[in-house]
Amino acid sequence: MENVEKRYRIEEDYLGKEQILEDAYYGIATVRALKLFPPTGEIFDEKFIWSYFMIKKATALLNAELGRLDKSISEAIIKACDEWEELKKWIVVDPLCGGAGTSVNLNINEVIANRATEMLGGKKGEYRVDPYNHVNLHQSTNDTFVTAGKMAVIVRLREVVDGVIRLQEMIQTKEKEYYNVRTIGRTQLMDAVPIMVGQQFGAWADALARDRWRLNKVEERIRSVNLGGTAIGTGVGAPKEYILRIVEVLRQIANVKIAKSENLIDATQNLDTFTEVHGLLKSLAVNLYKIANDIRLLGSGPNTAIGEFKLPAVQVGSSIMPGKVNPIVPEYVMQNALTVFGHDEIVSHACAQGNLQLNQFAPVIVHFTLKSMRLLINSCNALAEYIKLLDVNDEKCKENLEKSTSNLTPLINYFGYETVSEVIRKAGYDISKAIEILAEKEGISKEELMKKLQIEKMTGLGYV
Amino acid sequence: MENVEKRYRIEEDYLGKEQILEDAYYGIATVRALKLFPPTGEIFDEKFIWSYFMIKKATALLNAELGRLDKSISEAIIKACDEWEELKKWIVVDPLCGGAGTSVNLNINEVIANRATEMLGGKKGEYRVDPYNHVNLHQSTNDTFVTAGKMAVIVRLREVVDGVIRLQEMIQTKEKEYYNVRTIGRTQLMDAVPIMVGQQFGAWADALARDRWRLNKVEERIRSVNLGGTAIGTGVGAPKEYILRIVEVLRQIANVKIAKSENLIDATQNLDTFTEVHGLLKSLAVNLYKIANDIRLLGSGPNTAIGEFKLPAVQVGSSIMPGKVNPIVPEYVMQNALTVFGHDEIVSHACAQGNLQLNQFAPVIVHFTLKSMRLLINSCNALAEYIKLLDVNDEKCKENLEKSTSNLTPLINYFGYETVSEVIRKAGYDISKAIEILAEKEGISKEELMKKLQIEKMTGLGYV
Amino acid sequence: MENVEKRYRIEEDYLGKEQILEDAYYGIATVRALKLFPPTGEIFDEKFIWSYFMIKKATALLNAELGRLDKSISEAIIKACDEWEELKKWIVVDPLCGGAGTSVNLNINEVIANRATEMLGGKKGEYRVDPYNHVNLHQSTNDTFVTAGKMAVIVRLREVVDGVIRLQEMIQTKEKEYYNVRTIGRTQLMDAVPIMVGQQFGAWADALARDRWRLNKVEERIRSVNLGGTAIGTGVGAPKEYILRIVEVLRQIANVKIAKSENLIDATQNLDTFTEVHGLLKSLAVNLYKIANDIRLLGSGPNTAIGEFKLPAVQVGSSIMPGKVNPIVPEYVMQNALTVFGHDEIVSHACAQGNLQLNQFAPVIVHFTLKSMRLLINSCNALAEYIKLLDVNDEKCKENLEKSTSNLTPLINYFGYETVSEVIRKAGYDISKAIEILAEKEGISKEELMKKLQIEKMTGLGYV
Amino acid sequence: MENVEKRYRIEEDYLGKEQILEDAYYGIATVRALKLFPPTGEIFDEKFIWSYFMIKKATALLNAELGRLDKSISEAIIKACDEWEELKKWIVVDPLCGGAGTSVNLNINEVIANRATEMLGGKKGEYRVDPYNHVNLHQSTNDTFVTAGKMAVIVRLREVVDGVIRLQEMIQTKEKEYYNVRTIGRTQLMDAVPIMVGQQFGAWADALARDRWRLNKVEERIRSVNLGGTAIGTGVGAPKEYILRIVEVLRQIANVKIAKSENLIDATQNLDTFTEVHGLLKSLAVNLYKIANDIRLLGSGPNTAIGEFKLPAVQVGSSIMPGKVNPIVPEYVMQNALTVFGHDEIVSHACAQGNLQLNQFAPVIVHFTLKSMRLLINSCNALAEYIKLLDVNDEKCKENLEKSTSNLTPLINYFGYETVSEVIRKAGYDISKAIEILAEKEGISKEELMKKLQIEKMTGLGYV
Repeated sequence: MENVEKRYRIEEDYLGKEQILEDAYYGIATVRALKLFPPTGEIFDEKFIWSYFMIKKATALLNAELGRLDKSISEAIIKACDEWEELKKWIVVDPLCGGAGTSVNLNINEVIANRATEMLGGKKGEYRVDPYNHVNLHQSTNDTFVTAGKMAVIVRLREVVDGVIRLQEMIQTKEKEYYNVRTIGRTQLMDAVPIMVGQQFGAWADALARDRWRLNKVEERIRSVNLGGTAIGTGVGAPKEYILRIVEVLRQIANVKIAKSENLIDATQNLDTFTEVHGLLKSLAVNLYKIANDIRLLGSGPNTAIGEFKLPAVQVGSSIMPGKVNPIVPEYVMQNALTVFGHDEIVSHACAQGNLQLNQFAPVIVHFTLKSMRLLINSCNALAEYIKLLDVNDEKCKENLEKSTSNLTPLINYFGYETVSEVIRKAGYDISKAIEILAEKEGISKEELMKKLQIEKMTGLGYV
Repeated sequence: MENVEKRYRIEEDYLGKEQILEDAYYGIATVRALKLFPPTGEIFDEKFIWSYFMIKKATALLNAELGRLDKSISEAIIKACDEWEELKKWIVVDPLCGGAGTSVNLNINEVIANRATEMLGGKKGEYRVDPYNHVNLHQSTNDTFVTAGKMAVIVRLREVVDGVIRLQEMIQTKEKEYYNVRTIGRTQLMDAVPIMVGQQFGAWADALARDRWRLNKVEERIRSVNLGGTAIGTGVGAPKEYILRIVEVLRQIANVKIAKSENLIDATQNLDTFTEVHGLLKSLAVNLYKIANDIRLLGSGPNTAIGEFKLPAVQVGSSIMPGKVNPIVPEYVMQNALTVFGHDEIVSHACAQGNLQLNQFAPVIVHFTLKSMRLLINSCNALAEYIKLLDVNDEKCKENLEKSTSNLTPLINYFGYETVSEVIRKAGYDISKAIEILAEKEGISKEELMKKLQIEKMTGLGYV
Repeated sequence: MENVEKRYRIEEDYLGKEQILEDAYYGIATVRALKLFPPTGEIFDEKFIWSYFMIKKATALLNAELGRLDKSISEAIIKACDEWEELKKWIVVDPLCGGAGTSVNLNINEVIANRATEMLGGKKGEYRVDPYNHVNLHQSTNDTFVTAGKMAVIVRLREVVDGVIRLQEMIQTKEKEYYNVRTIGRTQLMDAVPIMVGQQFGAWADALARDRWRLNKVEERIRSVNLGGTAIGTGVGAPKEYILRIVEVLRQIANVKIAKSENLIDATQNLDTFTEVHGLLKSLAVNLYKIANDIRLLGSGPNTAIGEFKLPAVQVGSSIMPGKVNPIVPEYVMQNALTVFGHDEIVSHACAQGNLQLNQFAPVIVHFTLKSMRLLINSCNALAEYIKLLDVNDEKCKENLEKSTSNLTPLINYFGYETVSEVIRKAGYDISKAIEILAEKEGISKEELMKKLQIEKMTGLGYV
Repeated sequence: MENVEKRYRIEEDYLGKEQILEDAYYGIATVRALKLFPPTGEIFDEKFIWSYFMIKKATALLNAELGRLDKSISEAIIKACDEWEELKKWIVVDPLCGGAGTSVNLNINEVIANRATEMLGGKKGEYRVDPYNHVNLHQSTNDTFVTAGKMAVIVRLREVVDGVIRLQEMIQTKEKEYYNVRTIGRTQLMDAVPIMVGQQFGAWADALARDRWRLNKVEERIRSVNLGGTAIGTGVGAPKEYILRIVEVLRQIANVKIAKSENLIDATQNLDTFTEVHGLLKSLAVNLYKIANDIRLLGSGPNTAIGEFKLPAVQVGSSIMPGKVNPIVPEYVMQNALTVFGHDEIVSHACAQGNLQLNQFAPVIVHFTLKSMRLLINSCNALAEYIKLLDVNDEKCKENLEKSTSNLTPLINYFGYETVSEVIRKAGYDISKAIEILAEKEGISKEELMKKLQIEKMTGLGYV
């Protein structure tokens, strides 16, 4: 395989000539970008590439309709765009390339131009369809890149919300399943007062309900796009009618709810909505981290720590300790959440550091926003599957429940905070001893004390 | 002054005795906290302290009404709470103290208890009004601390929004003032195509409009509080009627739009709304950073860089270079924005790392959220004042406008992208030369070329 | 007190007149700064202020010696500088003020000028000693500010190292104390194999040993200062002899090991050493967080979780749950560590975003570096005190030790990984049952099995 | 191609059976991991995979030598390890998988076991060489994973340093080239005092010299590895002789300067050295960001901003604005630096959040550290290439040089700070006018003034 001779074609631009693999759909600008920007190991989000092709399709369509682009060329471009799934492997520039994404736009333009050229009977490199004058007609990297980014975010947002819903529903199933299992709550990791296992699942579910709502709502704000604004939002080089209609054409083709920004200049240079969206993704990461960490804690041991959850044995836990079950999925979720936190820093600073009429860091902003979304989708799904397999150790819950001296909290209404505290300390944090001492001290029977206590009522809302 | 002998009283708890300054309203728990947590140089937000006192007032009121607290004690507590402005100087524990804020709650309880004791004719340390059994009745640090934090955030949110409005309006004033001043746009800091100075102000104003909207909306989500939930949200130790009514009583007393959370357990342990709010504060910081940095760039020079803005000389610019004017206020705003970014990291991680039935890091979460808000209020106000004094250098704008070879962009519709590029390079990025060469090359007069160009129309939306 | 009439003097500069409190040592530039930069609630590090005064003293001394400054003026400045502790309350501008710290330098210049003026028989505002031409002679904010920052960092570094040593030694005391207490180790929070409690203390101590070494070493790199470089490092406006000698004079006066940078231009504009130092502070924060969190975990319960440490009852743990002991000091340390992480983000980005010949964000860089140091000093000291009071629950350790099925790990050398795993699962993670089943299955006596196991040897280094 | 029927083999473990692609070298544990951890789009660092194979080789070698492993099995393992380049494509689990890296270790064990099985005449899935009892003999994920990570870091560190050297040398070439070109310095983006272009290159080079030194030095601290410590650092399950010798065997095989940690327990659970290393990587990112941003600023315009650098036209700059040259490589470097900042947050928090005897987040720590290194290597190389092509616009430098009124700074020694300031303001920041006014005001000729000024001497070190 190695000794098959590679064949090249030559392309030329004002900087000189470059060899290009004969069967490559990309052209000279892409080759230059590959040399300038060594691969960072990052890969494009597929939805982003799809969005970009849809933009090219929409512009070709409208430009032809407005009489600005030859019908046959337009049709060839449109057909090439519809082959995006086959062509996407030729989008080879690095997602983190410099230049506000120019190399990405050029790569896409060249691939479409070469494929469309073939459709018109030409050969790659012949450019019967021109990357600049035809495929890029009335566009700039500056409006297409950010628009494609926002479209992809909208599509992924739906998937994130779906993931949250799936996870929330799985947790609610467990909420019902363990509605009647009483256990001990803990604050600051220390034994506190009783709680139902179902209530704890319910608390997690309600936290996720907020994420669901938030992520649903933010879609409204990310939908406002700057397509048509070309270089800086004034639409320089594009006809007014095109500018007024292009977003609507794209919306119909892609079936993504975008809308033309009311201020194209603002929408070109200010990318704060990405910070907003990513901030909400981070809120989800916060809840996922908390839930996953709680599961880790409740499943810890199982013999020498809390051990109230039976962690599912989904894989060999350790390569050396036999039979060990580890909370590997919660850890996976926590690692992804930590990664989302890091991405949030990248995205925010990149949003802040745009200059004047453009944010030159759009590539890093779009890339890490979409990556965080994929990490969160994965996390929700993996965690939902895991929770499905989770069991509660009822006996351990019961056993732990009866050990916490904080269970005596309701008695402060009868004997005062200081008295009860003193008794607990005297008993060395042994609850039975504490009850004995208190009964004796206050001259009432243990039974009466226990009646005042009513541990089984402590998980309701207050006392009556 | 130094040799005035300090007088102390002695208080005792189960850990032993402590000396307390005789005139101090705080008590032994506070003294212990001061020893445990050396001051970090952080100070409480006044609104947070106020909120905490209002909570104590509301609970005293309701507890008396429900017959759980002696009327006279309740009244003394209420009166003490109304003296919060005088008493606040006795809230001396560190805002970053450990224990989920317990030391803060204890400090406040002690101060109120001692003041109320005085009102009932007692002496400090006598505790006719008891910090635990009276002032803290039916409460826990765990519900009061977070509730006070959310109340303060709501109050400060309003001030942040007011700051944004003030800044936005000032920018809009400038938008109108410079509506007719044409200048050159820049992308990636390189000369691009024309823009009106007013349009640039308009883009900033529209970015701030998003912040205004976002920060207005988020109030809804932060208002849901867990007061009444006591230790873990089950309301342990508190009567049901109290739990159901306390938030409403507090809402009326403090006139802050809070609402009882529908799931007190969730609201006690999950603080993701702070991440959400801080994420939006960060979005504002992003826009402030961008605007301040743009002003810095447009005012740079003034002689050897862009120099299109005349920066106001609000202070001696340099301690050594005479007459130098520096963009000190934009820099102040940028520094504050960077600080908000750092706080965002603190708040998010702290929110994520809460465990089980409580977030033990509530102090750090509440503290840095409120601090970011104050920084942003200051930044908006300082920047608004600064922009008011800002002048545009019309001649420089005009001069710069005519220099950018990207102004030839509309000509690609006539001669193609590659041709125009080539001409520009040939002319060494000198626009007059480029026009000459192009005219000659294409065999049309310079006048006709300029007519095609129409720089004065390039800031409208596209061409007709 | 409120109705005491405040008296003002008037000062004037080219921007106009300002009222200044009659007894204030600062002057008009300070008043302007106070108006421009509303207080952010941050306070200066005392060591920074001290360093700045020492710089003023050194320059006055050398300038006089070089015949550039009148002897009597120099002496007055020197005396004023020696009064820094009394004067520091007049350094009132905000630590986060814009302008690369110009306002700070001006504030210090004015305070010294006014105090020196008094010493020469003048009145405040009379400026017999001039803030610019005398106190600031041959200096710029740009060289003095960063130099003062580095000096303060060096001084604080020593204190941080002292704190680390104190903590490390305390931990080593416990290492010895619990050298013979065997307990169970945990990986991923799940029961693993035996470890001596002393070994765990030893692991913490060795982590801190790295911090000690790192923070000791970094002093070398922060010591290189740009004093003498004035505005941009070329020493413009200053005589060569002054430039060559000033750092040495300062070194002797302040007794801080600084050295003149070999490239003053570099040292003025590139503040990467602050990122380096702060990165190492963060490494310490990492270890403190880990240690504090481990203590929390080992002390968790005490009845329903791990409970192997007896947390010291240093304060009332809860305001509602009687007798509760919480890990409040570890939480304090963790909160401080989280704060240091946030500061690290601020400092790094600020270091990166300096432009050309100066880093305009020096104030934020210096401020948060010093603040992190104070937080870490506090954390080390608080944690050392806490660990001193910590007890190990021997019985609980013993009890837990015998419960972990991972204790069977050495048997994989006899029966294979898969077999042992299977047995453990069959026994439902009950170790006695597992041993029984295995003995039966492999046809050897339980005693022989236990001999092969030798739990008491599992904490040595491998087996012989 | 799509309709080629895929063939599977079946493997079984205690959780049940799984289908495995017939030609896959991995086994059932890997398949389970693929289901549990959906791909995140991250890829392993090749050096990490290589390191892991070298560990397996070293242990096979030593285990055979110690008579613990059958010679023929050992040899098969060793041969399989030497085929790592061909086998690496079968390491398919996600780099961010949970479980402290267990899945990675299992994947590697299975691939080697299957390949070694083939070498012994068996078929995949037959496991004549067992993944656990042979390939993983005397190892745990917990010691192999971190050791492999540190080895890879050491290898990459060398490449980072090489990149820094290459960049530094290129900058020094330019330093010499532009040694005599005088231009204007800028502080806070405002015109300041003269500097030689070569001096500015020199300042950048000296900043990089610090990185070089730092990154060289840190190698010492990352070399201490925990191999031999197995599960928690006590070497449980491994013979003492093996523990004492394994690191040395590995050192010789891999030729990487590692050393056995003196405290294997510490080295297993405390990963603060990764924070330390990453902190220094961030210092490099700080300098790269600053340098790249400065180049952007100096090349800005070129006609309407600073324009002192002629940015190389390495690619089509804009897809719409003809002839535009953008600073795409500096932007690429800045984006990578921002990414490194984000990774630093991930790595630090993950290091801090390890628990007790293990850091469960080792995968995320190792992965992002190595990724940052690759980004920095790329950045150094890309920037060096770019700077090679950079030109200075001498005329523009000269032109700008003469425009800054701060050039009058040396005159404050003659006329005082206030006088010179006033004159500059009166002249409206026009330097020729200012000189005229000052000459007139002070009654000396312009020539004399210019002599006092001597702009050409202002870039030396002070005046004589």
